[in-house]
Amino acid sequence: MQRLKGFLDSHKVSTEKADLLCYGFDASKIKAAPAAVAWPEDTTDVVRLSKFAYEQEIPLIPRGAGTSTTGSSVPTKGGIVLSLERMNQILEIDGDNLFVMVEPGVINGALQRELGLKGLFYPPDPASLEFCTIGGNVAVNAGGPRAIKYGVTGNYVRYLEAVLPDGRVIEAGVRTKKGVVGYDLKSLLVGSEGTLATITKIGLSVLPEPETVLTLIASYRSLRSATETVTTIIANRIIPRTLEFLDRATIEALEAYQPSGLKGSESVLIIELDGPVKTVERDSERVVQICQSKGASLEVADDSLSQQSIWATRRAISPALFHISPTKINEDIVVPVTAVPDMVEFLQRLSEQEGIPIASFGHAGDGNLHVNIMVNQEDRELYEKGRSLVREIFREALRLGGSLSGEHGVGLTKADYIDMEIHNNEMDLMRGIKRLFDHRMILNPGKVFP
Amino acid sequence: MQRLKGFLDSHKVSTEKADLLCYGFDASKIKAAPAAVAWPEDTTDVVRLSKFAYEQEIPLIPRGAGTSTTGSSVPTKGGIVLSLERMNQILEIDGDNLFVMVEPGVINGALQRELGLKGLFYPPDPASLEFCTIGGNVAVNAGGPRAIKYGVTGNYVRYLEAVLPDGRVIEAGVRTKKGVVGYDLKSLLVGSEGTLATITKIGLSVLPEPETVLTLIASYRSLRSATETVTTIIANRIIPRTLEFLDRATIEALEAYQPSGLKGSESVLIIELDGPVKTVERDSERVVQICQSKGASLEVADDSLSQQSIWATRRAISPALFHISPTKINEDIVVPVTAVPDMVEFLQRLSEQEGIPIASFGHAGDGNLHVNIMVNQEDRELYEKGRSLVREIFREALRLGGSLSGEHGVGLTKADYIDMEIHNNEMDLMRGIKRLFDHRMILNPGKVFP
Repeated sequence: MQRLKGFLDSHKVSTEKADLLCYGFDASKIKAAPAAVAWPEDTTDVVRLSKFAYEQEIPLIPRGAGTSTTGSSVPTKGGIVLSLERMNQILEIDGDNLFVMVEPGVINGALQRELGLKGLFYPPDPASLEFCTIGGNVAVNAGGPRAIKYGVTGNYVRYLEAVLPDGRVIEAGVRTKKGVVGYDLKSLLVGSEGTLATITKIGLSVLPEPETVLTLIASYRSLRSATETVTTIIANRIIPRTLEFLDRATIEALEAYQPSGLKGSESVLIIELDGPVKTVERDSERVVQICQSKGASLEVADDSLSQQSIWATRRAISPALFHISPTKINEDIVVPVTAVPDMVEFLQRLSEQEGIPIASFGHAGDGNLHVNIMVNQEDRELYEKGRSLVREIFREALRLGGSLSGEHGVGLTKADYIDMEIHNNEMDLMRGIKRLFDHRMILNPGKVFP
Repeated sequence: MQRLKGFLDSHKVSTEKADLLCYGFDASKIKAAPAAVAWPEDTTDVVRLSKFAYEQEIPLIPRGAGTSTTGSSVPTKGGIVLSLERMNQILEIDGDNLFVMVEPGVINGALQRELGLKGLFYPPDPASLEFCTIGGNVAVNAGGPRAIKYGVTGNYVRYLEAVLPDGRVIEAGVRTKKGVVGYDLKSLLVGSEGTLATITKIGLSVLPEPETVLTLIASYRSLRSATETVTTIIANRIIPRTLEFLDRATIEALEAYQPSGLKGSESVLIIELDGPVKTVERDSERVVQICQSKGASLEVADDSLSQQSIWATRRAISPALFHISPTKINEDIVVPVTAVPDMVEFLQRLSEQEGIPIASFGHAGDGNLHVNIMVNQEDRELYEKGRSLVREIFREALRLGGSLSGEHGVGLTKADYIDMEIHNNEMDLMRGIKRLFDHRMILNPGKVFP
């Protein structure tokens, strides 16, 4: 790594033990030590780093803020962690063309606030939005609560600049809303988890800010009442901007961590409507009726402060669960919306049957559930038993017409299961694409593929 | 081709001269003779055909309804035209999950009507919607007037089943709204113009039907007043569902073909708003104000019959222009919305300077303009001069931050220009992807790549 130091300015690279430690893990809690950490400050730096890694055949691991729950930024094969945190400029906000250009290290929440000042809106909002980067969001095609109405990160990506593992720079996509010239390399990079190229510039579509937002929190005395509310709202052709679900285990963890008056509920929905004032008024009346017909206790938040308090509760779920089980197993399956009741009941049965707590919550409106198997690595036997449930949960999600992951990606933790969903013919093509972009197999090795 | 007849039932294949003629051209007017035409009736037939073509190393040209304006379905290298017109079933409409599954030969307009009966809505609406197929729409990532608000075909594709050139079947994407497992093969197939695989099944997202639709037609005494109306509406954060533009040459061609009271206008906009009644009322007031402040004469259509009449006018543009110039040169550049005024003025200057009529119309709201160089092949010299303008027009579109194509794709007619937009590094990757899917290079050869 001494040669690397000659390759980049010294303040852009480190082999200090503290740095190797800090950049050796992510939210998956999986740890590994890289040989060096580099902080490129522009595309040229990324090109230099890539050429160095390519020539030396050293792994190169692009990293946003390390909020991945699947270990997609952990340097399990050593090499250089390429942290994009210093490439954090919003380069351009072009409101008239509803377009922004950013560097990959821009924090999602910071972009949202900056756009808000100009009456603009970037919908994708992962729970980690105050930490996670747009580059990381693109790398895993991140979603968030608002995906039910507004789609996921990939729906907003118009343009990418990226550096191939051998140092060549590519551009994919266009600045305009439409563009169909050649194969869609941009969508191939979205969700590729840093295994094909290092993204260095991102052009995004943005929207006009919705006129008004109304948030409802509904608590239920039975599980099925909540899940049926979800399917009934959609069947009534109302698309809220969020339709979040919390099960009893999640509510109990939350109440223990940060009491918010939900104690005793069997399940909770957080429903948010946005749009023109009159429409939100009318739709919210209908939603309130549906919730009440299912026996919900309701609280309506129509000002920003009380809305923020509801979302603070929602965003406290992850920390609350980690507080109980620091090494909990966290999956993010998707099923068709109409299958959410069956899936949630399956999880509760499995939990009772196996004697292992399972906390489920998430984006019920698009069928994307965060399933948390509440085990700790200290209890090795129980932990292994917990791990063995993952395959059963995936099998049920697939049986119901779903997928192994709605927004976390594959990373390390799902690589052993990917063949449950992706079969040989498709896997051969994916491996071929990987070799095409990265024939020395140095970019984020060990991820996605088993 | 005798062997092919033994391979598929005789009613599924023909080498009759009339069939070879009918399936040897598309809307580009480019003609070539295939050796045979086949009409598979299910995926198994497509597999058999693909295996036959693969073993014999014969070109195989997937074809929807032949509405491509770029020649993407013309069998320029001979081989077998694989017409998907008999695979035209809507397999499933799942309103509660806002999902439909169709065969590739389903006509766009037929799907729209069927969904309308159930209160559902599939936005992409190419002008050829009464003829073109969903499979063809996916193959070129087709747009249409509503793309400004609702996006293009690719935004709705959740799942694809496709047959690789060697006969292997692949599935890409998921039935659910979210899904991020492995590389996005689905988006790679979207817009690949039948050069990577033959699409045999398509899963699409649909939306609840908008409550109401209001259509305005605004005619102007100057060009700039219309293009400024477009940018002003967007700058006011109103996103109509269509914002169509017609220039004087287009209006004159229309009036000659099918008079509709627009005579004497320098430019026309067709603006359509949809959504909840109150919102449409309010936004339309604002839009009317903006149009009037730019000096427009306005007609408002709030019932289905008068709306249909406006759209009949819009959809008569292509036939009207073909009537004047059966071999006109038709491009579909995109520029940023704010650059539409400059682009349109550039085209008018170019037309005057070169003495060649150029008619421009299209989706001004997303910057996608249909540029028609009105020359005929009979006048060889003028035709060649007309062709020489294409490069200049593309150069200007790119200079303004745009693209060579917003919805038609590359096909044959733009293949010689693709390197103006896609450079060597990206082209190398695209060629690599082509070889990966189709190493014998038999699927729709000669398209996309120069």
